[in-house]
Amino acid sequence: MSTVKDMLATYPADLGDIDRAKLTRCIEECITCAQACTACADACLSEGMVGDLATCIRTDMDCADICNTTASVLSRHTGYDADITRAMLQACAMACKACGDACERHADTHEHCRVCAEACRSCEQACTDLIQAMG
Amino acid sequence: MSTVKDMLATYPADLGDIDRAKLTRCIEECITCAQACTACADACLSEGMVGDLATCIRTDMDCADICNTTASVLSRHTGYDADITRAMLQACAMACKACGDACERHADTHEHCRVCAEACRSCEQACTDLIQAMG
Amino acid sequence: MSTVKDMLATYPADLGDIDRAKLTRCIEECITCAQACTACADACLSEGMVGDLATCIRTDMDCADICNTTASVLSRHTGYDADITRAMLQACAMACKACGDACERHADTHEHCRVCAEACRSCEQACTDLIQAMG
Amino acid sequence: MSTVKDMLATYPADLGDIDRAKLTRCIEECITCAQACTACADACLSEGMVGDLATCIRTDMDCADICNTTASVLSRHTGYDADITRAMLQACAMACKACGDACERHADTHEHCRVCAEACRSCEQACTDLIQAMG
Repeated sequence: MSTVKDMLATYPADLGDIDRAKLTRCIEECITCAQACTACADACLSEGMVGDLATCIRTDMDCADICNTTASVLSRHTGYDADITRAMLQACAMACKACGDACERHADTHEHCRVCAEACRSCEQACTDLIQAMG
Repeated sequence: MSTVKDMLATYPADLGDIDRAKLTRCIEECITCAQACTACADACLSEGMVGDLATCIRTDMDCADICNTTASVLSRHTGYDADITRAMLQACAMACKACGDACERHADTHEHCRVCAEACRSCEQACTDLIQAMG
Repeated sequence: MSTVKDMLATYPADLGDIDRAKLTRCIEECITCAQACTACADACLSEGMVGDLATCIRTDMDCADICNTTASVLSRHTGYDADITRAMLQACAMACKACGDACERHADTHEHCRVCAEACRSCEQACTDLIQAMG
Repeated sequence: MSTVKDMLATYPADLGDIDRAKLTRCIEECITCAQACTACADACLSEGMVGDLATCIRTDMDCADICNTTASVLSRHTGYDADITRAMLQACAMACKACGDACERHADTHEHCRVCAEACRSCEQACTDLIQAMG
């Protein structure tokens, strides 16, 4: 995943006073979480009692879409708009919180929900850290 | 585009007290705006002075991603979470405002920016209307 | 949906000898089908016997992602690469065929699957027509 | 990135005889490449002669969308359809080849194009390897 860092290091214009370490980590967490949520939604579909997992699957899908879009917005710096970035980070932290909660409820019975919940918690924290660093 | 309405009409569970007409319109505006922004970013790349359009192109790309994700979140009703929906609608209205402003600056010289600005204004309004209807 | 046509009409460079009507229709069908598949996957999650719909839900999700990406690729004309466009159209026609088949199996019992199957058939046809028109 | 591997290891149903190491690597390369392409398109927008980079930017955007969708399709195993997976892998390898070529042309002058070209080459290889492993 050093590619995220390398792409940031080669950006040709001024990045402003953004915290590069927190930005790098947030992009990495978003793309990791998006993939985990996509995989978790599908793993849930292969479980015995899918009906009990309907909310988990739906939250996984929202979280995957929102994390992917947040990663893309954070990967663009030209014409940077702090308000849009902050709004997306807030939506992302909220989606990760909800998805982490939904997955945690099944963590004891479904290993994929446990792994996915960890990815959500970690991404939520990275979003919150970046929001704070933005001031 | 009656498919958006038809899919909503065939949803098998309770939709709660959401305003169906405003929800339908918002989904339609989001997918229309996402496509217009993707096309506008590319049309800008074919103009003579691309450097002058860098912020417009970037804003188009953010707006396209955010509108697409908002349309997907709004198309899901199982395990509906009003907070996530509202957060995405706010990010979407903000992105559409910024993109409408950026495109409008070039509307006199570039027809594609004029058409795209209209799509953004219309989508921003639909998002704001739906936020208000959600209470 | 006249926005798709309007954006195409305002493209500032040469579009080559592509069939504009077929291109417009294919973009419209792709974004309509992507939304229908996203909504159908979620509607399936609200049905009683979700386990029986697992393959349908999964195919809906693949089809939604592939249709969205195809719409984006088709909306870009600068540096147009016919090989990439054709490869995406073939993947899209294949995903729409599989999703139309999966939804049709439940069309008698689930109205959302019936509407979604129609969107898939229509999108598959539009992709096939555009591939043929490309020569 | 061990999350991709962990999610695969916790999948509750049979994965068939797919090569897990190659599948894991391909998903990782796709999400890394999608992020690099999104960042590269934006970095190009901040360069002095954006007009010379128009094809590179456009190819970056196609490649980002296609890699993201390929990663999602590869992350789903329920109701697995080898034909759709193969079609997406072929489109992805083709997009990565075109984007790697486009970026390489600017690798001497733009560091971000050099890093992005490497990500594209690596992802193209991972897609080709997985296609071969699928038989």
